[in-house]
Parts: sequence; C-alpha cells; structure tokens
Amino acid sequence: MAPQQSHENVGYPKLLNKSNDAAATISTPIKPLHGPQTNCTEQMMIWQWDEATGWEAPEIRPYGPLPIMPSASVLQYATECFEGIKIYRGYDDRLRVFRLQLNCERMLKSSLRVGLPSFDTAHLESIIMQYGALQAEKWLPSGQTGQTLYLRPTHIGTTAALGVQKPRQSLIYIIATLLPGFSTKGNGMRLLTSPADAARAWPGGFGNRKLGGNYGPTLPAHDAALQAGFDQVLWLFGPEGFVTEAGASNFFVVWKTKQGDVELVTAGLDNGTILEGVTRYSVLDLVRSNRDQQSMWQHNGKPLPPLTAVERDFSIDEIQDAVEEGRLIEAFAAGTAYFIAPAEIIHHRGKDIRIPLPSAESASYAQLIKRWLSDIVFGVQDSQNWTREI
Amino acid sequence: MAPQQSHENVGYPKLLNKSNDAAATISTPIKPLHGPQTNCTEQMMIWQWDEATGWEAPEIRPYGPLPIMPSASVLQYATECFEGIKIYRGYDDRLRVFRLQLNCERMLKSSLRVGLPSFDTAHLESIIMQYGALQAEKWLPSGQTGQTLYLRPTHIGTTAALGVQKPRQSLIYIIATLLPGFSTKGNGMRLLTSPADAARAWPGGFGNRKLGGNYGPTLPAHDAALQAGFDQVLWLFGPEGFVTEAGASNFFVVWKTKQGDVELVTAGLDNGTILEGVTRYSVLDLVRSNRDQQSMWQHNGKPLPPLTAVERDFSIDEIQDAVEEGRLIEAFAAGTAYFIAPAEIIHHRGKDIRIPLPSAESASYAQLIKRWLSDIVFGVQDSQNWTREI
Repeated sequence: MAPQQSHENVGYPKLLNKSNDAAATISTPIKPLHGPQTNCTEQMMIWQWDEATGWEAPEIRPYGPLPIMPSASVLQYATECFEGIKIYRGYDDRLRVFRLQLNCERMLKSSLRVGLPSFDTAHLESIIMQYGALQAEKWLPSGQTGQTLYLRPTHIGTTAALGVQKPRQSLIYIIATLLPGFSTKGNGMRLLTSPADAARAWPGGFGNRKLGGNYGPTLPAHDAALQAGFDQVLWLFGPEGFVTEAGASNFFVVWKTKQGDVELVTAGLDNGTILEGVTRYSVLDLVRSNRDQQSMWQHNGKPLPPLTAVERDFSIDEIQDAVEEGRLIEAFAAGTAYFIAPAEIIHHRGKDIRIPLPSAESASYAQLIKRWLSDIVFGVQDSQNWTREI
Repeated sequence: MAPQQSHENVGYPKLLNKSNDAAATISTPIKPLHGPQTNCTEQMMIWQWDEATGWEAPEIRPYGPLPIMPSASVLQYATECFEGIKIYRGYDDRLRVFRLQLNCERMLKSSLRVGLPSFDTAHLESIIMQYGALQAEKWLPSGQTGQTLYLRPTHIGTTAALGVQKPRQSLIYIIATLLPGFSTKGNGMRLLTSPADAARAWPGGFGNRKLGGNYGPTLPAHDAALQAGFDQVLWLFGPEGFVTEAGASNFFVVWKTKQGDVELVTAGLDNGTILEGVTRYSVLDLVRSNRDQQSMWQHNGKPLPPLTAVERDFSIDEIQDAVEEGRLIEAFAAGTAYFIAPAEIIHHRGKDIRIPLPSAESASYAQLIKRWLSDIVFGVQDSQNWTREI
C-alpha cells in the first residue's frame, strides 16, 4: 500500500518517474536504446504487412531505431527470422547476387514456421535487388572488384498483444553492412564440441529454419568457447555425437573411407536439425556436377582425386578414427558469412582432434571448392544461372 | 546497374524513397509500427544495462514504442525472455503478489540461457513491487476485491551488431494489463495433441526457460488447433507420446492407478522439456503438505480421497487407458495466466479422449486445488509466506 517506504530501507536506488516528464513522452524524439553501435549503411528498407490490408508499398528510410511496442509479438514470442545475402562486385566490375531465390524461399519457410505471414518470394527478390542496387551504388562502387556488401533481410511480428497468437501485423526490413564482423583466428577455425547434455536443435523442432530462436540459446555455449580460446562451437547431436553445425555454419569433412574412396561428407536434411544452407547446397551441387570432369580437380597446378558427395549422419568418433588412421584430409565450415572456412582443431571432451591443414604448396579441397564458388560469384566462371546481375 | 528500370516491368509496386523525406527522419516523432493495439496501462518500467556501466536507475515512463535498432540482438537472435506475474486484490482489500521471488529467479535463469546479463533478483523484485504498486493504485483500486492485474517483465538484448555474440546492452521493462485475453470455450479446455513429428522442446534444449524462442515456433500448431475448434495444443514428446505442456501451461491428470491409489500426475523437470511453472510448484506443494490433513480434502461439502502427487513421464496412451478403464478422474492445466483450467477433451490422432468434468453438485479436485490457491492469493487463508503484500 505504501510501496516507496517499504522498499526505500533496503538500499535500492530510487525510481525515476519520467511519466509526467515532457522529455520522455513518446511524441518527442526518441533516442535509440544505447545508441547506434553499428556498421550498417544509412538506409534501410521497410515493408509492412497488416492482416486486414496486406503488404504495403516497400519504403526506403534512413537507418534508425524501429518504434516497436513493448508488448509486440517479436519481443515476447520471438516471431522473427532473417537471411544473410551478399552482393559481390565481380572482377568484371559487375554486381551480382548469388542464388537469391533460395534465400527468399527459405525466408518464406522460416516466416511460416513462427506464424509470420506469407509473401510473394519473387516480390521479396525484387525488393532486395532494388535495395541492394541502391546500397551497392554507394558502398560497393565501380572498381572495388572482389569486395562484398552483406544484406540482412529480417521479418518480425509487430502486433502489440500479449495473447500467444499469430501476429496480425508484421514487418520485413532489410539492412546492409560492409563489415559483418565474421573472422577466425589463425589459419583455421578452432572448434569446441558442444557439451554432452546440450542440443542446438531436435527432430520436429525448428533447427532447419533461420529463426532468431535458434541463435540466442547458443550464446552461452558460444561465449564459453570464445573464453576458452576457440572460434565456434561444433554442435553434436544425440548419444552418437552426430556432427551437425559449426557455430551458425554447415560443416563438411573430406576423408578417405576404409575402402579407399575419397568423400565429402556433411549432415543430411532428413531430420531437420541443420540449416538448409545455400552455400551447403551449392558446394554439394558443384562437387556432384564436377565429379566426372577430371580437369576441374586441380588446384595450385596439382591434381586432386574427385570427391564423392555424401549427405548422412556422421559422428565425432568417425572423425577421430579418420584422423588417427590418417584418413582425414580436410574439414571446413560453409555459409554466406564465412564463405568456406577451414577447420584446424576440434577440441572434444578434453582432447584435441587435429585436422590436417594444407601448406602453401599443397593442393586443398577447401581452396578448390572456394575457388569454384568465388569464380561464380565474382563472374570469372559461367554461373549456371546461380547469379543474377544487379 | 539500373535497378528501377529492370524491375518496373514485372509489375511490382514502385518503391517509396523516404530517406530524404523530413517526415521520415529519425529525429522527428516516430509512430509505432501499426499503432498501439494493446490493453496495457499507460506506464511502463524501464531498466537499462550496459556491459561497461552496469544497471542504470530504473525509470517509469509512459507506455509507448521502444526505439530498437534494426540490427539489435533481440530482433535478430531472440535474446529475450519474460515472466507473467499477477497482483491480486484480496477479499480483505489488500494487494498481494504470489511467490514473486520464484519468478525473479526464473527470469535470471532464462536471461542467462540466452546470453543476457545477470542481475540482483532482489533488486528486480523491488522494482516489480514498486511498479506494481503504482499500477494497482489506479487500475486495481480499493474495493475491487477478487480482481487481478497482470504484469509482464521482459528482458531483451539491445546491442546493435550483426555478429552472433552475447549482447553488451540489454533492457528489462515491465508492462501491465487488466486484460490478458486468456480464455477457453465451454466448460473445459478442448485440447488437440501435437503432430507426431513435432516437438515443442527437447532434452538439452531450452524448453524449461521462459524464452520468447519457445513460443513463436508453437504458433502454427496452435493456429491449426484454433482453426479446428480447439483451445490449445497438448504437446507430446518422443515416440512414447509423453505429455509435456498444454499450450503454454503445465498439465496435470488425476487418476486412480490400477492398484487403486488416487494420484495427481504431472511431467517431471528432469529432462528440461517443460517450464518450471510457479503454479505447478505450488499445486504440488499444496497437495503434498495437505496429504495427511483429512479436513482439507473436501469441496462442496463432500469429501475427496487425498491425492498422492507424482512427477514423472506419463504418456497419452496411459491417459487413454485410464479413460477406457474408468480410472481417469480429472485433468487440468495450471499457470499464472489461466490459473487452474480443467480439460474436457483431448483429441488425439483422430479420436476424442473425453475427460470427466464434475457436475455442479459433485466435488472436484481442480475446484478444490483452485480454491486452496485462491484462498492464499486473495488473503482468505494463511499464505505460508507465499504472498507478499504491496
């Protein structure tokens, strides 16, 4: 009944009451909470949806704080998903995006997975292309060949209501940055396997969709890995210790089987515990389509045996065995942000599993595959319709 | 290179470019996206944290849009959690909160689970008490006995940076509403079991924390249940079909075992797939502490055999068997929002499992337990230190 008195004596700071303070009312300028620490470009794209009226015309606006109601669906129930897309300034000085259609289709699947509304994926493609063109004109100007601009389309539920229900309003926005801030220490990634009792995703869950909800809960394990001097967590699944993702990237190993075949192995999509990565698809597609073209399989002037691409559950024990038996050739993570990032060490239950890293002179599958992809995105190679010029 | 032209001919609406439009700049008043459709009170509590400077003084502000950067951690990676707390206007006209300490301790666990910062739970308690007192003074005035006000403390990561890392800034805010909008049709809840291939939560995941990320991905199944005429999804887990939660509430059954014991059964906390509900704890505590006090076990003037409280995995098949063998006595969901809500029907794989509902004359365990709890929160009964007066 007398709240101020009953709490003042426990030594807590007194409340500031700004509800009658003109400076704090919502009709005066609102500063972003804790300021704009960001490397985003100065423009964003806004595309609003309302159940009653559908999708509005998309708008370019200055980059700045979004006014989101405290009871908004996105802040309470994580009705949110995103995509990562790069614009590449080719060696021919042209601008390209890579398999944008796949990103837009995945964003639709992600949106529906958290009750966000459907949209025309071709329309989203068009909006991203137009926004990307505007940003690239300024931030990726002619002459900056080999450079990239990173786009982050995001879809959030904006309905302000505490009932746990599908949002009736939502917003797709797109922001862009030159500095995604993704880097690894040393020559290759140092990975720490996830704790035995931790799972990033589960069959019947949503680990195959690019939802915000897949990332927040990985942060404590990720932070513990950083504190211990590693770059990323290698997420294992189940009692068998199946390898799923490295941080927020798909993971690949190259090994010789006991029968002597040379395989590229990555987790399959069957049980829905890994993200359906666009780079992942592309690596598998390239390895398969180049399988029988001997001329493709050389790097640094040296030939490499062609790889057989395999999607299946594979365990950390299989990697350990392959290393011990000298059959492990390479391992790498793949994704839009990191592109192709070789792994150097997997620390598992107190032991280092050392992945071979190619020397400057040797040929490398990671380097070869990275070059195949680079040649496509930077316009050196025919793109198989995977790129689209802006 | 010429984006406008290349896309105009596909019939999409032309972009609005407001980036040079004074009306859209961030220094002018910002309207909330899609307006404030809300039943919240006109004040909110704001408590900001920065890695460098710690927790600031909490502030009361007018309820209104939060200015959140588009690249903010909460919008990208679901670094968010919340609590639900009620203030009760007792039959003695006093204001009480119920086991607030448990909510604050759970909010800390939830925060840490998504990389949000730690805080003094006693400090949060104090802030909630002070904010609650201010709101109750206006919205739950003296004389409104038996009424409640619902508080929603929320913690979000506000750092504006796209790297997947723990937020360096965060914000706890509290909003209040008289109308949480939680209701069921008919006499009891009509539940639809979750699809065979869907899991709400999993061992090693985060289903035991009150994270936004646990709610968004349930919305499509929840919406399908609503469309089919049900109130909530009954979430099953694993091939055994273990019963976990009903919507966002804990779930209880009362049955006679084959040996003739009368049990209250709910899922255990061991594998972390259910929320550690405050109402859940309290129901179990009351049933256990009243076990041997025969005088407590009567309702509507009729005696009821005392219950044995059991926490264990139990399956939908066990419920089905108990119904078929006439051993199922009742079933109900329990949580802060719904309080104690009896279930009437569980629709499972095409079949209705009909739960007995007490008639107006009969005694009922759900009614009895609800009365025990009501008597405590509304000040009729000694509170066992579970309530705290405001």
